[in-house]
Amino acid sequence: MVEDKRISMAVIRRLPRYFRYLSDLMKMDVKRISSKELSERMHITASQIRQDLNCFGGFGQQGYGYNVESLYEEISKILGTDTRFSCIILGAGNMGNALANYENFKKRGFDILAIFDIDENKVGKQINNIDVMHMDTLDDFASKNKIDIAMLTVPNKNITDIAKRVTSLGIKGIWNFSPTDLMLDNGAVVENVHLSDSLMVLGYRLKDIRG
Amino acid sequence: MVEDKRISMAVIRRLPRYFRYLSDLMKMDVKRISSKELSERMHITASQIRQDLNCFGGFGQQGYGYNVESLYEEISKILGTDTRFSCIILGAGNMGNALANYENFKKRGFDILAIFDIDENKVGKQINNIDVMHMDTLDDFASKNKIDIAMLTVPNKNITDIAKRVTSLGIKGIWNFSPTDLMLDNGAVVENVHLSDSLMVLGYRLKDIRG
Repeated sequence: MVEDKRISMAVIRRLPRYFRYLSDLMKMDVKRISSKELSERMHITASQIRQDLNCFGGFGQQGYGYNVESLYEEISKILGTDTRFSCIILGAGNMGNALANYENFKKRGFDILAIFDIDENKVGKQINNIDVMHMDTLDDFASKNKIDIAMLTVPNKNITDIAKRVTSLGIKGIWNFSPTDLMLDNGAVVENVHLSDSLMVLGYRLKDIRG
Repeated sequence: MVEDKRISMAVIRRLPRYFRYLSDLMKMDVKRISSKELSERMHITASQIRQDLNCFGGFGQQGYGYNVESLYEEISKILGTDTRFSCIILGAGNMGNALANYENFKKRGFDILAIFDIDENKVGKQINNIDVMHMDTLDDFASKNKIDIAMLTVPNKNITDIAKRVTSLGIKGIWNFSPTDLMLDNGAVVENVHLSDSLMVLGYRLKDIRG
């Protein structure tokens, strides 16, 4: 049923949030929830929630609400949380370190196989039990290991070249932390993380309440 | 003119992206751009761009397009990039380190005054020339310095207590890196950064192209 229709990216981008909230509700042993209650918790309008969840089957029942567990299972299935992805981190700086130490990633299906850097002082060491290897060994490593995702925390000036190199090795997923929006025309899938954007929105909202 | 009407948060959230692209165009000495060209670069539909930019005056002229510099200036003004915000980082771990080393923040008006942690091995040291101070000294520091934003990179289990403590000190802006969506009912402004959400969307899109 789900496979039959395309779910818009706008809805997909909200699914991890539903996933987190439903997961919290399950931990609190909540069995069912109305769109109104979910709306109050998530600060999303109830009608938006109903519309979103309708996209993939809509388990809500009049007067009952949503069954938390089935909704959680369904969203997990759509997001593919049962799928495992092999990842590498390029750049063993602060952000690379932070990512290597994120415990949630493994729980969500993302295994980090290795970290690559050009700094001889970092190469040969480990971060959270993951080997830091020299960038020169990347091609060899990629030929011996299937890699789904490269997490790029390298300096911005090299980002396009590195992204091209990575995708030429058959790596299809790019998680980009550089300020440049990577746009690759080779079928690779890119998610850009722009921390500054989020901070600028916070600044705007603060300025707004100051009046 | 801009002050007269409310711009929706959906538009506001896209402004930093326009800001980045326009800033790049200015660096390339591009004087004007059509919504079509901007659309191709940004992968946003031209009609969405026209609609967004119309929200705050709409500088587009038929057959001319947008004047890059005036659009940049206007978006800067709305986002308040001329405003300076005083920030502190709570948590001197990997993410705290990464944030303290982000050079872009200062350029965008965000000054980091100090970093706080409870780890005696970190207290007294500096990260990127910023002092790491003990959490016990936070109240005193806040009484002597006007702080706009607290960047929270502390362990998730303490997050709500810490957010409450921070806002009780008069700090109105919270940039939250814990997996919990902070919702505070005390007038504070919270932006939650969920790296896992972005990674899950990447996973979904990869699964999608694999078929």
